[in-house]
Amino acid sequence: MQNLLDRIERMREFGPEFIDITWNAGGRTSELTSELVRCCQRDLGIETCMHLTCTNMPAEKVDIALKEAKQWGCRNVLALRGDPPFGQEQWTKTEGGFEHGIDLVKHIREDHGDYFDIAVAGFPEAQNRPDRDIEMKYLKEKVDAGVNFIFTQMFWDVDLFITWVKAVRAAGITIPIVPGIMPIQTWNGFQRATSLAKITIPDSLLAKLEPYKNDDEKVREIGTQIVADMCRKILAADIGIRGLHFYTMNLERGTRMLLEALNFVPHIEVVRPLPWRQALTPTRRGENIRPIFWANRVKSYIHRTENWDEYPNGRFGDSRSPAYGELDGYGIWIKQTPEEGRKIWGEPKTFDDVCKLFSKFCNGELKSLPWSDTAPASETTVISTELARLNELGYLTINSQPAVNGAKSTDPVHGWGPRNGYVYQKAYLEFFVDKKKFEELVLRIERDPMITYYAIDKHGNLRTNNHSDGPNAVTWGVFAGKEIIQPTIVEAVSFLAWKDEAFELGMQWSRIYEPGSVSRKLLESIMETFYLVNIVHNDFQDPQAVFAAFGLETKKANGTANGGAH
Amino acid sequence: MQNLLDRIERMREFGPEFIDITWNAGGRTSELTSELVRCCQRDLGIETCMHLTCTNMPAEKVDIALKEAKQWGCRNVLALRGDPPFGQEQWTKTEGGFEHGIDLVKHIREDHGDYFDIAVAGFPEAQNRPDRDIEMKYLKEKVDAGVNFIFTQMFWDVDLFITWVKAVRAAGITIPIVPGIMPIQTWNGFQRATSLAKITIPDSLLAKLEPYKNDDEKVREIGTQIVADMCRKILAADIGIRGLHFYTMNLERGTRMLLEALNFVPHIEVVRPLPWRQALTPTRRGENIRPIFWANRVKSYIHRTENWDEYPNGRFGDSRSPAYGELDGYGIWIKQTPEEGRKIWGEPKTFDDVCKLFSKFCNGELKSLPWSDTAPASETTVISTELARLNELGYLTINSQPAVNGAKSTDPVHGWGPRNGYVYQKAYLEFFVDKKKFEELVLRIERDPMITYYAIDKHGNLRTNNHSDGPNAVTWGVFAGKEIIQPTIVEAVSFLAWKDEAFELGMQWSRIYEPGSVSRKLLESIMETFYLVNIVHNDFQDPQAVFAAFGLETKKANGTANGGAH
Repeated sequence: MQNLLDRIERMREFGPEFIDITWNAGGRTSELTSELVRCCQRDLGIETCMHLTCTNMPAEKVDIALKEAKQWGCRNVLALRGDPPFGQEQWTKTEGGFEHGIDLVKHIREDHGDYFDIAVAGFPEAQNRPDRDIEMKYLKEKVDAGVNFIFTQMFWDVDLFITWVKAVRAAGITIPIVPGIMPIQTWNGFQRATSLAKITIPDSLLAKLEPYKNDDEKVREIGTQIVADMCRKILAADIGIRGLHFYTMNLERGTRMLLEALNFVPHIEVVRPLPWRQALTPTRRGENIRPIFWANRVKSYIHRTENWDEYPNGRFGDSRSPAYGELDGYGIWIKQTPEEGRKIWGEPKTFDDVCKLFSKFCNGELKSLPWSDTAPASETTVISTELARLNELGYLTINSQPAVNGAKSTDPVHGWGPRNGYVYQKAYLEFFVDKKKFEELVLRIERDPMITYYAIDKHGNLRTNNHSDGPNAVTWGVFAGKEIIQPTIVEAVSFLAWKDEAFELGMQWSRIYEPGSVSRKLLESIMETFYLVNIVHNDFQDPQAVFAAFGLETKKANGTANGGAH
Repeated sequence: MQNLLDRIERMREFGPEFIDITWNAGGRTSELTSELVRCCQRDLGIETCMHLTCTNMPAEKVDIALKEAKQWGCRNVLALRGDPPFGQEQWTKTEGGFEHGIDLVKHIREDHGDYFDIAVAGFPEAQNRPDRDIEMKYLKEKVDAGVNFIFTQMFWDVDLFITWVKAVRAAGITIPIVPGIMPIQTWNGFQRATSLAKITIPDSLLAKLEPYKNDDEKVREIGTQIVADMCRKILAADIGIRGLHFYTMNLERGTRMLLEALNFVPHIEVVRPLPWRQALTPTRRGENIRPIFWANRVKSYIHRTENWDEYPNGRFGDSRSPAYGELDGYGIWIKQTPEEGRKIWGEPKTFDDVCKLFSKFCNGELKSLPWSDTAPASETTVISTELARLNELGYLTINSQPAVNGAKSTDPVHGWGPRNGYVYQKAYLEFFVDKKKFEELVLRIERDPMITYYAIDKHGNLRTNNHSDGPNAVTWGVFAGKEIIQPTIVEAVSFLAWKDEAFELGMQWSRIYEPGSVSRKLLESIMETFYLVNIVHNDFQDPQAVFAAFGLETKKANGTANGGAH
């Protein structure tokens, strides 16, 4: 599952309008289908099209699936009759279920009005069969029952496809048709899929591929060219095809090669409307502000704010619910098992060992920390040297962002939002530090009127120089014709909620070691006695100023505590 | 009245906490008092303290005055018994009125709870009189009835004042005391005020002033030094005095000289929390966003939005009421009488004459236009050459602001808001232009993706390239520890409301000339046929880019239509 989600995460960079979540015959995996729809819509922020079949599906089960899809914000359903269950030859109607695809279409329309866009399958291959007129009659009836678009089955003969499309149009069907495209990944895969779906292969195609059937690399290379040519021919034919539907088979490489051959890999701004990923569930679609604290723990943020009545849009304070969910209710666990954790982090014996682990993480030499499941974001690499140095000095950083003073919104590292705009960030640092070092730090910080900070220990003792109630916008964008968008903020109430989680993650780390062991005691004592500190350097026009407060030599030789003259 | 308001406008730059609006004995001018409170609170955005006397005031009249004060947001009242009405020797109670100041204090507290801060008068001079203990007893009773602070009458003997303050404290009165300071402006004024209030003058003071009693300039100079010394002595005495109350007598110069001598003239940021003046009425106190269109007609904007349920705060769209008041309901007139208008603008005979008038206004050679009662704001002087040139070319500009790319919030020209921040502006231009010239312009504009515009004629035909619903923030500020503040926006619904007013002002201008006259026909035909256009250049990082679209040579020799490289 995690493997698949990671792949979806990568494949979203291809810029799909949505992805399909198939429905397994027999209902064995219907819970998995719903779970995947939820993960994609809510956690990954990708639009989905959920498949739904009649096989082994009493109406109540269909209704549950639709209700859940709706709950997670999925608005597309592919309504299928489906294949017979595994081990059965003939398709039979389930008791209390639907006999034909059209019954399912009608049922969805009756219960959910216009909420869902409904797709049905089209079979270009049927154009070769004697019963093609009956097939077309059924398709027309389904479409008339309220279908919005047609996904086709795979095919290898583009001329046949074009003929079929014309026949569909001649039958009075005017809704969009999206051809199903199967990338060729291996000879065996190509053969298996084709014979399962009973698709004819033109001799010319076979002649090009078969000589290399023992060379998968070559098959993929030639196959990519063949399918790319097919796609170009389809799009060039004057039959109104505006999109392609790829049968990825959960594989990434063949689709990527195909998209590259077609020059369809999109620019980055297409997929980054905000600096963080928006959730696509109905209540969260308008959400456009979040606190920075959960930047590396998005799923936890979504969980802990799941019960909010509305989500911040435009201003954080407008719709903030007073309450973050408790840690207990959501299982805020570090992702690593104890074994994995000990393997990644070893057994730190001294505080210096811990500092070195954090420093390594900043340098990209350690793949995760309890507070970050993934390597540092590419944008923080511009300050990775400074971060590593801070950790060596005993400031254990768990979150940060560099200052950005008006980069173009199309900037490959910092950019987000529409074209024709500029993005800004205030430098942010969050770290654990012992109380003695904090007292030294705070003396320096308070000399710089551009720094605001909050510090809190595990027991809730709070120190701050920020006495305004409102949030501090630390990321914002200015775009043509729009209000200022400020998607990331630092704010006291949220920090108090995050603090429990931050200390708990450290305590969980300690518990991967034996009770009484040196490592366990060391980590426990850090969590028990350190401050968790967040610092914003509000002078975003001076990117290095934040480090001056730590006595770090900055790139500007004359950097001073207040950021130098500018 | 206008003269007085202009003076208040200038004197607000001294940074007073509030200004006093006196109450004239006999009620002859009680409507004027209420009117002044309204103008100060709502139109000028200055906090007021309203005086209220018992003289000739039945309780109903007091109640009306308090209700109106509350309605305009005034929260301070100085409760006085007052002098006998003009021509009367003895003070007598009005039927249905109040006999003593304390009755008035009690009445205000009963009816309005804690809403008002109530001040009463204190008489340091009484310390010299035999009845001083009775006076002190009365004062104590009033304070106990719910008074918040004491304003003293004028005095010249600081030692006497200090003695009195100590006596007040000894009587158990702990509320703040604000000494009344009378600047010395002329020998006669000094003598008259002093004798009216029956104040003793120390011989040493007389000795310094009297020799120059025929030289007002010298009296003012020496007087300023004398009073400044008094103030310094008062503030240095360890008696807890934290503020001074100046008897300005509606005069500006003496108070300014005194404040300068005391080095009390504040920095600009103290008095500019937003780029425009906030109204201080209860419903508008939180308002922090306005459309740019009424920048030169603030009073009209306040009138036309007077009935809104709430005012935009943080975002314009959040609380925008759908309806601007109609022009008819509010008397949107040009300020100039026909005679004044003809004197200022002459009798334009050709379109070129009109262009020259507009161009002169931009250059500061003409003091007003029907759309602007005052000279251009200091910030537009940085683009006055370009503006004048545009007008010569036939674009009749009525509103504009230059681009500002992150000036310090303390910048004397563009700055506003708290210290430790940066302010930004997108370049804005609004003008009338004939349709032919507009068509040429729009061809150039649409080549620049950073320009958004709205154009509309008198009859409501709208042209725009901005198809987003939301507002365009054209002024914003970034401050330490705060969300982004965006006080000025461009927005379609507001522009449609403004358009009626803009064309009506032009029609009113035409009507200062005889029906059938050349000038009248000329101005009418401009209003009938021209577009009113607003243009935002969204690339605030390139201040000159907006002028490139007009084919103006910009200061950057290589300026191109899209603002050049940056």
